[in-house]
Amino acid sequence: MIINNDHIQDSNRNKLEEHSESFDFLANKLSKKGHNISNIVSKLSEFQVAIPSWALGAGGTRFGRFSFYGEPSNLEQKIEDVGILHSLTQTAGAVSLHIPWDIPSDYKAIKEKADALHIKFDAVNSNTFQDQTDAKESYKYGSLSNISSAVREQAIQHNLDVINIGNKLGSKCLTVWLADGSCFPGQNNFQTAFQNTQDSLKDIYKGLPNDWSMLIEYKPYEPNFYSTVIQDWGASLMLANGCGDKAYTLVDLGHHLPNSNIEQIVAILQLKGKLGGFHFNDSKYGDDDLTVGSIKPYALFLIFNELVYGMQNNPQNPDLAWMIDASHNVKDPLEDLIQSLEAIQEAYAKALLIDQEALKAAQANNDVVKCQEILQGAYRTDVRPLLEKARLNTGGAISPIDSYRRLDVRGQLIKERGKNTIATGL
Amino acid sequence: MIINNDHIQDSNRNKLEEHSESFDFLANKLSKKGHNISNIVSKLSEFQVAIPSWALGAGGTRFGRFSFYGEPSNLEQKIEDVGILHSLTQTAGAVSLHIPWDIPSDYKAIKEKADALHIKFDAVNSNTFQDQTDAKESYKYGSLSNISSAVREQAIQHNLDVINIGNKLGSKCLTVWLADGSCFPGQNNFQTAFQNTQDSLKDIYKGLPNDWSMLIEYKPYEPNFYSTVIQDWGASLMLANGCGDKAYTLVDLGHHLPNSNIEQIVAILQLKGKLGGFHFNDSKYGDDDLTVGSIKPYALFLIFNELVYGMQNNPQNPDLAWMIDASHNVKDPLEDLIQSLEAIQEAYAKALLIDQEALKAAQANNDVVKCQEILQGAYRTDVRPLLEKARLNTGGAISPIDSYRRLDVRGQLIKERGKNTIATGL
Amino acid sequence: MIINNDHIQDSNRNKLEEHSESFDFLANKLSKKGHNISNIVSKLSEFQVAIPSWALGAGGTRFGRFSFYGEPSNLEQKIEDVGILHSLTQTAGAVSLHIPWDIPSDYKAIKEKADALHIKFDAVNSNTFQDQTDAKESYKYGSLSNISSAVREQAIQHNLDVINIGNKLGSKCLTVWLADGSCFPGQNNFQTAFQNTQDSLKDIYKGLPNDWSMLIEYKPYEPNFYSTVIQDWGASLMLANGCGDKAYTLVDLGHHLPNSNIEQIVAILQLKGKLGGFHFNDSKYGDDDLTVGSIKPYALFLIFNELVYGMQNNPQNPDLAWMIDASHNVKDPLEDLIQSLEAIQEAYAKALLIDQEALKAAQANNDVVKCQEILQGAYRTDVRPLLEKARLNTGGAISPIDSYRRLDVRGQLIKERGKNTIATGL
Amino acid sequence: MIINNDHIQDSNRNKLEEHSESFDFLANKLSKKGHNISNIVSKLSEFQVAIPSWALGAGGTRFGRFSFYGEPSNLEQKIEDVGILHSLTQTAGAVSLHIPWDIPSDYKAIKEKADALHIKFDAVNSNTFQDQTDAKESYKYGSLSNISSAVREQAIQHNLDVINIGNKLGSKCLTVWLADGSCFPGQNNFQTAFQNTQDSLKDIYKGLPNDWSMLIEYKPYEPNFYSTVIQDWGASLMLANGCGDKAYTLVDLGHHLPNSNIEQIVAILQLKGKLGGFHFNDSKYGDDDLTVGSIKPYALFLIFNELVYGMQNNPQNPDLAWMIDASHNVKDPLEDLIQSLEAIQEAYAKALLIDQEALKAAQANNDVVKCQEILQGAYRTDVRPLLEKARLNTGGAISPIDSYRRLDVRGQLIKERGKNTIATGL
Repeated sequence: MIINNDHIQDSNRNKLEEHSESFDFLANKLSKKGHNISNIVSKLSEFQVAIPSWALGAGGTRFGRFSFYGEPSNLEQKIEDVGILHSLTQTAGAVSLHIPWDIPSDYKAIKEKADALHIKFDAVNSNTFQDQTDAKESYKYGSLSNISSAVREQAIQHNLDVINIGNKLGSKCLTVWLADGSCFPGQNNFQTAFQNTQDSLKDIYKGLPNDWSMLIEYKPYEPNFYSTVIQDWGASLMLANGCGDKAYTLVDLGHHLPNSNIEQIVAILQLKGKLGGFHFNDSKYGDDDLTVGSIKPYALFLIFNELVYGMQNNPQNPDLAWMIDASHNVKDPLEDLIQSLEAIQEAYAKALLIDQEALKAAQANNDVVKCQEILQGAYRTDVRPLLEKARLNTGGAISPIDSYRRLDVRGQLIKERGKNTIATGL
Repeated sequence: MIINNDHIQDSNRNKLEEHSESFDFLANKLSKKGHNISNIVSKLSEFQVAIPSWALGAGGTRFGRFSFYGEPSNLEQKIEDVGILHSLTQTAGAVSLHIPWDIPSDYKAIKEKADALHIKFDAVNSNTFQDQTDAKESYKYGSLSNISSAVREQAIQHNLDVINIGNKLGSKCLTVWLADGSCFPGQNNFQTAFQNTQDSLKDIYKGLPNDWSMLIEYKPYEPNFYSTVIQDWGASLMLANGCGDKAYTLVDLGHHLPNSNIEQIVAILQLKGKLGGFHFNDSKYGDDDLTVGSIKPYALFLIFNELVYGMQNNPQNPDLAWMIDASHNVKDPLEDLIQSLEAIQEAYAKALLIDQEALKAAQANNDVVKCQEILQGAYRTDVRPLLEKARLNTGGAISPIDSYRRLDVRGQLIKERGKNTIATGL
Repeated sequence: MIINNDHIQDSNRNKLEEHSESFDFLANKLSKKGHNISNIVSKLSEFQVAIPSWALGAGGTRFGRFSFYGEPSNLEQKIEDVGILHSLTQTAGAVSLHIPWDIPSDYKAIKEKADALHIKFDAVNSNTFQDQTDAKESYKYGSLSNISSAVREQAIQHNLDVINIGNKLGSKCLTVWLADGSCFPGQNNFQTAFQNTQDSLKDIYKGLPNDWSMLIEYKPYEPNFYSTVIQDWGASLMLANGCGDKAYTLVDLGHHLPNSNIEQIVAILQLKGKLGGFHFNDSKYGDDDLTVGSIKPYALFLIFNELVYGMQNNPQNPDLAWMIDASHNVKDPLEDLIQSLEAIQEAYAKALLIDQEALKAAQANNDVVKCQEILQGAYRTDVRPLLEKARLNTGGAISPIDSYRRLDVRGQLIKERGKNTIATGL
Repeated sequence: MIINNDHIQDSNRNKLEEHSESFDFLANKLSKKGHNISNIVSKLSEFQVAIPSWALGAGGTRFGRFSFYGEPSNLEQKIEDVGILHSLTQTAGAVSLHIPWDIPSDYKAIKEKADALHIKFDAVNSNTFQDQTDAKESYKYGSLSNISSAVREQAIQHNLDVINIGNKLGSKCLTVWLADGSCFPGQNNFQTAFQNTQDSLKDIYKGLPNDWSMLIEYKPYEPNFYSTVIQDWGASLMLANGCGDKAYTLVDLGHHLPNSNIEQIVAILQLKGKLGGFHFNDSKYGDDDLTVGSIKPYALFLIFNELVYGMQNNPQNPDLAWMIDASHNVKDPLEDLIQSLEAIQEAYAKALLIDQEALKAAQANNDVVKCQEILQGAYRTDVRPLLEKARLNTGGAISPIDSYRRLDVRGQLIKERGKNTIATGL
């Protein structure tokens, strides 16, 4: 199913007036306070977040999975789904493939399909946390960190293969997430496992094209429950530094111990020029992979405050690879992703409203009350009209969720695909 | 220092126009969607939160305390400070006394002072977590739970004395927070400590006037670091049930283990008619006692969603005793409290905007996406104009913080009181 | 495969001498201090823990599952596996069935098989967290708490069926664990969900035979990630009280928020006569379902201290249903269970060595140092000889792990069952 | 009060026989398994842990402090207290001073006193988290990270002064713990605060004598409750690397987020040659500063497993500065420290019993069950006879707690010092 511009314009019609009134009122009010509204709206339009190919079907837990109708059953359909999201939101102009779940059979056809939908190929993701049916070696006890060199070599070669696949599609970035670790004290030697991981990453790094970057993800636990080799940003950064200038740390919001101050991690990595990518989701307990902004929207805003600051003040840090990394156990995956995209744009817009000069001045005076007023002043602003405007300007829907439902997208997909398709992935 | 109406009107002048525009635009928009704005504004005006007498001076940690100039040095001055807060915000019309820090020397004078400032005496708080200089028995190893009956009796008598003091002032409620517990495994017998606590509370309950209620607070840890006798709502409720109909559970936002779902606790207690009081603050790590809404404003909104639901649907539950229970280590205590009051009103206003009928319908259909849209729709609304209106209607400041600074309240207090006064309390 | 007594005696032979020396030395030493060793050894022999039928195959996470060879592929083989465990350890004399994974096709044959292996049928477990292929209604949005009465009725009927099945096998206990809850704020109404759960449980309770008990399990999160209807012991106890005298709370060690003081919960539940069952496992982060005692053995000891105290002092509390509830992702499930059984016995033995009279006296004096010395004195004792003796006395192996390996049990099972069997379960 | 050898020998007398029997039995058993007992006992004797000067009086919380009789009221008395500990345990042969609480008035006299008691001067600690009465600048909003260069310079100079004081006493190490951070979002700029801290540390580093090292401590929160500048090992290591070869990370057991895997941090820091020091304590909730080993003794053992591994395999890492950093709210501080020293020795002894070769072999085979058996085998051994032997060999007490009580040390101290002395410190 492809959503064309006419459909969207139709679905916008009954919301235009209210949008205009709200936007005008807000723009006027903010302009008076010195904000450059068209600049903010442009930035919102330009901000594009990749959709991971595995997030288009129903997710699940170890206790089971409840199916969802009309799931995409192949890569083409996944890209179609991203196309739908992008048409509606105009902020999902990229897909992030997961290998081996999404190896194209016909590269040219896939690229043409993506081009037609204005979808780029962002970071490619390797998978060494599951065994493939034809695999020689098992990752049960680790991949890049494995005590066995044969396993490590298989995992290294897989990552090189992933680079090769990504290269054919125009991707410029490899994301490495390792499940490696241990479930019990003593199961592995921390130093050996870390050293093996460093050596394996270096071997992959050697195969990285010059214009690529390598993003190293960290996570404290799950699926290993005693230790994880790359447990936190400190370990990730150490490994990235060990590889070279094109290796960076990737932050996934859900991959932290309880109460972590993630915005501070983000700030320090940018200061050092080593923040390479960002995975969005939300959580209350662990790596819950919930809709972005559904649990802790203020924390997301504070993180965007740091990201905006870094984008403006840290030329030493590269452009970031943005991706949603959520799982959809009880919602229509496309609706869930629309809500996530909206929450990201909201946090970004509010962060753009922070008066950085006033904040700096208040900090210089240790006027803590004023600092809080400035942040909360931006956060309390209802920025939805700005988001609507940014979408309207680029052909998207005023309310993507409403349009999605009005156009009965899921109904169409079920008609096309049936009820029992299953998307590859978790 | 007393802030009179003229001062406030003066300080409002330059904000009136912007307020009117914003309020009219918002009221119009919300009215179209079916909201009764004057009703909401009235509810905001009526919502009053008690200020604890110990929160008007600088707080501290075990690592030290940095002083603040112009602190109130006696009960009269504390009530003056609450009067200032109430004049500006019109939502702080009560004070919650802590005994023995705030025993009036002249009850009549104190009552008159409070009356003049429109301040009521809300819950009175006992203190059995510190030793008083003239005390016979020490609370080092517990108070109501102590293995020694002499200590327990002293603690019971203290609570009865507190009731007596409160009674003279018009208070109708006793709040019992126990630090009792243990720092090391084996230090006390859990069953004995619990049973002693139950028996002691029953003795206090016997002394409770008929029109009073007793609120039992819980907390998982600090100042005891292995166990606390009343560790969670389950323990508090068990003890309240053991006392009788006038005993209730009190929820303090900071008194929970990491990741607790507090809103669910609030809901279930209201369902059972056993939520008696509420202490507001915010935290990232433990019982941090930070400004309300400064860290997790969405969680506060979700809690207010339950409170509003309970106020509308649970006649079995009494009116609640609302209090701020924060500590002020780096901010002017009065400014900090103004920010807390604002955050409480904001969360309340947003909760009042939730379309309960639509939510119920979406829940009936398991339309999870819609449920989230409804909650976020309310939350994303910028309700500041409603808060301003509620304050204006009752003679308060459009922006209490701005007025506080414009009127140089702290400067006046320092002039009156000097720099080296120290408020009794923590 | 069945392990007979001769096999075990053979495997014990080379360990007998060392065991005797160690046991004699320890028994002599402890006897001098006033311990009744034969009494302790008897208690250890009598302590039997149920093995859940779903724990005999490889476990997994949402990221995948690595298979294990020789898994039992039907109920008969599962009971055989429990028989092997019991032969070696003499402390696994019961099995806990999970319905619908383990519905017997021939009740008589199953009972005879179990009898022959000295295995009893302990608590039966219902499953309303997954959809069965032929189910009319889906549990995607809850079971006993579901907004739809049709779903609730299906779930109630399932529990009644489970009781019926258990009854035919001699079980006397139903364990209800609900995954019910929500993934997002607003998804369900806390009060309605709780009330529905209470009503449903009452309906099940009505079908409970007079000599049965119903155990209500609680868990803060997973597989739902915003709220769980029965989130903690307070909620479970409230529901149990709402049902009646035969309903109890069941504590699973892994089902708590970070830093919970579980031993205190255990103590208070026993004081109230409402602790009905116990699920053993261990964890570092969440409900990790690791081998008992592998992460926090001292916490397990402290819990056993309370359990022993309760068994001796709380006649109001019933005998408990003990079960291991762990998952085996990287170990041979049978070896993992042997290690769990050993850790349970170790904690129990050490708890039995606590001098309760001396502890009581030290507590009466607030001699915190002494209290700690008493607990640590018991804990630091190497009780392995007592465990060996208890097993020897009842025909078990001195070292079950060594015997298991020496007898090549897994090799035999693979020969019998093949490599690709898969046990029903998670 | 000074405990001489005769006192200790006397107090040992009635325990000698039991000790000998137990030691002989254990030594014989372990020797048969290949352990070199005299080597292990020697290592235990050589292991010395510094006592911080501030830990000899009663601790407290922000809710209050309960006094303890006979506290040392000056530096001489503090060193006497360490002397008492060392006489009894023979493992507390060092003191760690905190400036400005413990500035000697007569360096020569203090050194002679310490020499006479066989006490060395270990790391010196600076204090920039409290304001001193005569200070020009306040640390309320930070010290080395402060936005004001005047404050930073005062804090730098203080650290240089501390080095100077330490140098006169023979110390070779400066420990820097910063409370710097923020209580509210926006209060400071993360990047600026970090950069200021780095620059300040470099200035201190320049003043470090060549044979000194600088230890940089980290902590996630408290006394700041939103962010801490040096929040984790990653930040500490980055700062240490920025300073130079003599700068190292210091790990304090209580300074971690919930569920942190500390042993892995320890291992990786040793691999990189950057673990400089270690502060022992225990905790259940936060930085509880409880007696070492009183809550999670198995975690302590796992940490010692890594420390022992590092001492044997990481020549790139320096010798560590060991210190107890606990607070004593409900115990006699000296008894508390004795229990801590015992727990440290116990964990060390058990770690020395791990069969590293067997463990390595099991890890190579991914024999997870065997790895666990090896660790638990060591941990379950009752090593108390080895600790007793190590103390006996060097003139210490078989049971330091028993001797302390038998000799009525506290009674003597109260006689000498009175009841109302207060030790400087927290």
